[in-house]
Amino acid sequence: MQKLDVAVLGATGAVGQRFIQLLENHPWFRVAEVIGSERSAGKTYGEAVHWVLDGTPPASVTGLRVKGLDESLDSLLVFSALPKEAADPREIELATAGHVVCTNAGTNRMLEDVPLLLPEANADHIGLIDYQRQRRGWSTGALVANSNCTVMPVVMALAPLRQFGIRKLLLVSSQATSGAGYPGVASLDILDNVIPYVSGDEQKMETESLKMLGTFAGKGIDWLNTTVSATCTRVPVVDGHLVNISVELENVPSTEEIIQLWQDFRAPEPVPMLPSAPEQPLYYLPQVDRPQIRRDRNAGNGMATSLGRLRPCPILTYKFAALSHNTIRGAAGCSILNAELLAVQGYLANFQPAIAADRMYS
Amino acid sequence: MQKLDVAVLGATGAVGQRFIQLLENHPWFRVAEVIGSERSAGKTYGEAVHWVLDGTPPASVTGLRVKGLDESLDSLLVFSALPKEAADPREIELATAGHVVCTNAGTNRMLEDVPLLLPEANADHIGLIDYQRQRRGWSTGALVANSNCTVMPVVMALAPLRQFGIRKLLLVSSQATSGAGYPGVASLDILDNVIPYVSGDEQKMETESLKMLGTFAGKGIDWLNTTVSATCTRVPVVDGHLVNISVELENVPSTEEIIQLWQDFRAPEPVPMLPSAPEQPLYYLPQVDRPQIRRDRNAGNGMATSLGRLRPCPILTYKFAALSHNTIRGAAGCSILNAELLAVQGYLANFQPAIAADRMYS
Amino acid sequence: MQKLDVAVLGATGAVGQRFIQLLENHPWFRVAEVIGSERSAGKTYGEAVHWVLDGTPPASVTGLRVKGLDESLDSLLVFSALPKEAADPREIELATAGHVVCTNAGTNRMLEDVPLLLPEANADHIGLIDYQRQRRGWSTGALVANSNCTVMPVVMALAPLRQFGIRKLLLVSSQATSGAGYPGVASLDILDNVIPYVSGDEQKMETESLKMLGTFAGKGIDWLNTTVSATCTRVPVVDGHLVNISVELENVPSTEEIIQLWQDFRAPEPVPMLPSAPEQPLYYLPQVDRPQIRRDRNAGNGMATSLGRLRPCPILTYKFAALSHNTIRGAAGCSILNAELLAVQGYLANFQPAIAADRMYS
Amino acid sequence: MQKLDVAVLGATGAVGQRFIQLLENHPWFRVAEVIGSERSAGKTYGEAVHWVLDGTPPASVTGLRVKGLDESLDSLLVFSALPKEAADPREIELATAGHVVCTNAGTNRMLEDVPLLLPEANADHIGLIDYQRQRRGWSTGALVANSNCTVMPVVMALAPLRQFGIRKLLLVSSQATSGAGYPGVASLDILDNVIPYVSGDEQKMETESLKMLGTFAGKGIDWLNTTVSATCTRVPVVDGHLVNISVELENVPSTEEIIQLWQDFRAPEPVPMLPSAPEQPLYYLPQVDRPQIRRDRNAGNGMATSLGRLRPCPILTYKFAALSHNTIRGAAGCSILNAELLAVQGYLANFQPAIAADRMYS
Repeated sequence: MQKLDVAVLGATGAVGQRFIQLLENHPWFRVAEVIGSERSAGKTYGEAVHWVLDGTPPASVTGLRVKGLDESLDSLLVFSALPKEAADPREIELATAGHVVCTNAGTNRMLEDVPLLLPEANADHIGLIDYQRQRRGWSTGALVANSNCTVMPVVMALAPLRQFGIRKLLLVSSQATSGAGYPGVASLDILDNVIPYVSGDEQKMETESLKMLGTFAGKGIDWLNTTVSATCTRVPVVDGHLVNISVELENVPSTEEIIQLWQDFRAPEPVPMLPSAPEQPLYYLPQVDRPQIRRDRNAGNGMATSLGRLRPCPILTYKFAALSHNTIRGAAGCSILNAELLAVQGYLANFQPAIAADRMYS
Repeated sequence: MQKLDVAVLGATGAVGQRFIQLLENHPWFRVAEVIGSERSAGKTYGEAVHWVLDGTPPASVTGLRVKGLDESLDSLLVFSALPKEAADPREIELATAGHVVCTNAGTNRMLEDVPLLLPEANADHIGLIDYQRQRRGWSTGALVANSNCTVMPVVMALAPLRQFGIRKLLLVSSQATSGAGYPGVASLDILDNVIPYVSGDEQKMETESLKMLGTFAGKGIDWLNTTVSATCTRVPVVDGHLVNISVELENVPSTEEIIQLWQDFRAPEPVPMLPSAPEQPLYYLPQVDRPQIRRDRNAGNGMATSLGRLRPCPILTYKFAALSHNTIRGAAGCSILNAELLAVQGYLANFQPAIAADRMYS
Repeated sequence: MQKLDVAVLGATGAVGQRFIQLLENHPWFRVAEVIGSERSAGKTYGEAVHWVLDGTPPASVTGLRVKGLDESLDSLLVFSALPKEAADPREIELATAGHVVCTNAGTNRMLEDVPLLLPEANADHIGLIDYQRQRRGWSTGALVANSNCTVMPVVMALAPLRQFGIRKLLLVSSQATSGAGYPGVASLDILDNVIPYVSGDEQKMETESLKMLGTFAGKGIDWLNTTVSATCTRVPVVDGHLVNISVELENVPSTEEIIQLWQDFRAPEPVPMLPSAPEQPLYYLPQVDRPQIRRDRNAGNGMATSLGRLRPCPILTYKFAALSHNTIRGAAGCSILNAELLAVQGYLANFQPAIAADRMYS
Repeated sequence: MQKLDVAVLGATGAVGQRFIQLLENHPWFRVAEVIGSERSAGKTYGEAVHWVLDGTPPASVTGLRVKGLDESLDSLLVFSALPKEAADPREIELATAGHVVCTNAGTNRMLEDVPLLLPEANADHIGLIDYQRQRRGWSTGALVANSNCTVMPVVMALAPLRQFGIRKLLLVSSQATSGAGYPGVASLDILDNVIPYVSGDEQKMETESLKMLGTFAGKGIDWLNTTVSATCTRVPVVDGHLVNISVELENVPSTEEIIQLWQDFRAPEPVPMLPSAPEQPLYYLPQVDRPQIRRDRNAGNGMATSLGRLRPCPILTYKFAALSHNTIRGAAGCSILNAELLAVQGYLANFQPAIAADRMYS
């Protein structure tokens, strides 16, 4: 099978680097174009990038010339790690020009015809693309978003609990500094410190979660009707967002039932066969002091969500902790999984991957 | 004025060292006896202690011979930094033998005749000592406790809000490693990590806070009638406990009213004149990203509580953040302030400090 | 091919856990016996271990019953992660009883008939086993050690430079806390701190390096004749030891020559074909600010050594930085590589692995 | 006595904030003017500053209007915390206009007529101001620099050892992130990491130390004739620079002699009477694992230097560790001490402080 060429917007930033790293050795996609800021354009990727992940940038990409944000692209599939301001209006322009844009930017997430896709939780939201294309007059183009990185573990944990009626959610996060990009959080602000505030994230927690857990309704999403109260804090860790969740349920299952639902939870077909899908989306850890950010963030190669400490909440119904890797599951990894789903569902023109036996991780 | 000799139980541990440090240069008290484990007994304090605070142990104490836990003591006033197991039954024995014991140990905190004293919040609970002495047949002896270090900022913040009727409290903490003593938390457990669990602290948050905020009723305390849900986490910081608090109030003041109440809050007389009392017990920080653990833990020489981010909670009434220094305000410093209050209230036999102009900090 | 059953001594400790983790999925070896302290003996490994690495212990091992240190073992090959005191005399007893012991303990490292083996640097030291067996009357038994974890990057970096005559070595290390095992370094001792001392390591740096870089001489090793001055410090990082090295050379190559030698350096056959051998033992990073502990410790799956900042030293000849993963390359990983070499060289009785195509990493 | 009004250049930066903090309550000086970048000019200091130190900016300064860098100043004495580029040519202009500039910037440090003043080590270098004034035709103006923050502990430690003939110095530093200003080091670059490089600092270590330890020669400084080799690394701590030092001495005293010299070391009169002078400039800590960055950086209110681990070096003569607070002793605090010395030596026009009993710290 010939791999599909893809482009990465904002390729030199922290999340852009995660895209580059996760796409190395991808069985279906091959990074053919990297797009950067004006400062980077014209240089090779190796010259332009200040690599902040472990090791060094993949040799397959370092020689690519960085394109400017306004240059036209050859790749049908475009991943966007653009900062919010740069994403608007470039992402819409690219989709209008026929590209399928899978974006991590917050800009267009809440547009009514843009799916906020998390394949394990709401694979059917992909149907919104048909409405999107019809409404905007796009034929091959599309725009699909993934959520804020802190929302991700919350939605993953709650997906199997929707059946009980989720009435209230009280969320308090402990977020890694990589969530703020690079250079992002200054070391003097976070060493030996906790900051009780993350700009913009509380509002995203209180809205994006409801859209993602909502019901596909042909021309939009019927949001989950739940009251959410979020507090977001920044902690001195590199990667991994932990959220302490209190939830009020209309119908109350036992803790054993919930744990069983989490452990047995599987995404609908064909998601489990996608290359980036984790073997098991949710892991419940029985130890009283888990999940821990450093020790559990890489579960399922950073694509799984770890859960723990399920117990009654004296005020709402239950409380527990949920943890995901914020730049893998919560950003680039989710966008890639979304694109894989688009591919097998026929949204990437005539690109038809052979789905079998292509799992990246085992 | 001649200073009163005092003894420190558990003087070589992390909290014991804070007692030693805070009592250096105390205007009323002078450390005359240090009590340690069997391993330390007989050595000088300088030999026995592995000093974990900044700098080195005060010269005035390093030459003292460490007494064993069973040795009799000469000092009327005894501060206890004993671990839970060692505190029982030694603290009761010492009080029975006529000593006034101000303890940081959890052992006897919840006994119905032991005041859980926090002078700014419940100075009148000191009256419980009269009942205690009568009931146990003690004449000079007494046992006074201070709360768990994570409960402290919660009670400080809520003290001025009791008037509005506190119905529900949802608490999520971010706690420094010094809260676990020394050696306490292993570095491999906390570097680049958050642990979503602190053994025992959630239960303490859900009970001690209610006793402390309760009403003195002659022969006991009428607990505050409030539902509390607590989650405690450990973060990689040295000192300082931050708690994110959601509170439901029966009568709802404006945020401006609450902030004013916090800023104006003063302990009842004569507490503000005590040597260890902070100039202002509560500081509300208007910046959106405060209080921060490292930057605000030393407010009021570690005896003040910093508050911030007051805003409506979509589920309960309001939410905000509170921060105290856990080994000063939340442990040794509070015990010392308690002892100062005992002194001026006449509970330290005939020791009568000259209260005026002895403020340690300005 | 049937895998060889192996035993791990000290299997519940921090380095023991690394053995368990690295041996999962090993193409030649299979963990069949785990040996722990008296406290652990009789429990299953899953019950006994407090897992401090990422994730959870491998399912293939959690069900094994932990044996006591004195129980006899069935496995020919024994890996030892024992603490120093426990290793003596148990390791010698086991070798005497016919086991091949690959140890990470410091106890027997400097015995004249025990090879301090680092296959890339001194594979021929394996010949010392013949002398060892003859001298001690062992037929199948053997005892092979690997060096202290801080010595490892130094020896790796200097191996290709021996040809120039190494006269003097001045070493200053920055060591991760995992080097001290678990619980090891208390968080209060290392958060926001650097400790300018690591017990015992300076002396090991100044002796083990000379033995490892020495020449096999039939009945012992002729140590390298070099003056070494070492300073060891502890820094707040989880894994990875960085050493700043100043070296005086008798014959002075250019920096380009040295970098070329490092990049081209390959272990002698058959080492590069061993399952745990890194593709390239040494990487020279041209960036001015590398190697960095977090970003480079996992090079070559933690088995490679990263080098950087080669430049003239105004006092000795050159200076540079070297970095290895201390619990992989510097401990368990090296022991396993040593055992692989023993296997193909015929020192593991009649166990004959099929060497081709068994590389664990690519 | 009326306090002298002073100006602070670069007052909103990290070192500028230290000036503001240390000058609050200064017995001789009063901050009357704060100068910032174009972005800050016109705002009040409270509006302009993003305070990165503990607590909040002093109330006495928050109301001051921030002046632009080009505005004329009223204060005779000017402290400069300007970045290198901004310092040139502004500092020279201000001195030419009659101001006495005490600077922390690196720009003019190595000019032959600018003293690199460290009162405990080279108070007589102040005489260079006479030559400076004569040469440049200045009457009241002057320019005095303090050294790079990493050089400071080295020079402090070596000052009493000059008598033995210092031939060679091999230095390896572990530096706090505050040394890079704010935002400075990104958290993603330093959490769980060590960076083996600090831009520019190695060169400064190898030159500034020689000028500072040199001899005043009327029209310049005769540099110390010593070979220096420096390696600078960045570690995840907030404040405090630790340097491991190997030194070759021409005449070899015993370790006891050196320790005695360090403990007895006092600055020449009148330095010990200056308000910011530490009671004791050098502390030798006998514990094998000291000085430690977090525990010893605040010795002498951050103005003292802590020493430890003196032992023979197998290659040079001795090795030991030295530690100073980089933004107090190594930056703002030293500039203020320099200004105090200028005042009592008559270099601040007719400002004549009453020296007695004004020690800020006891």
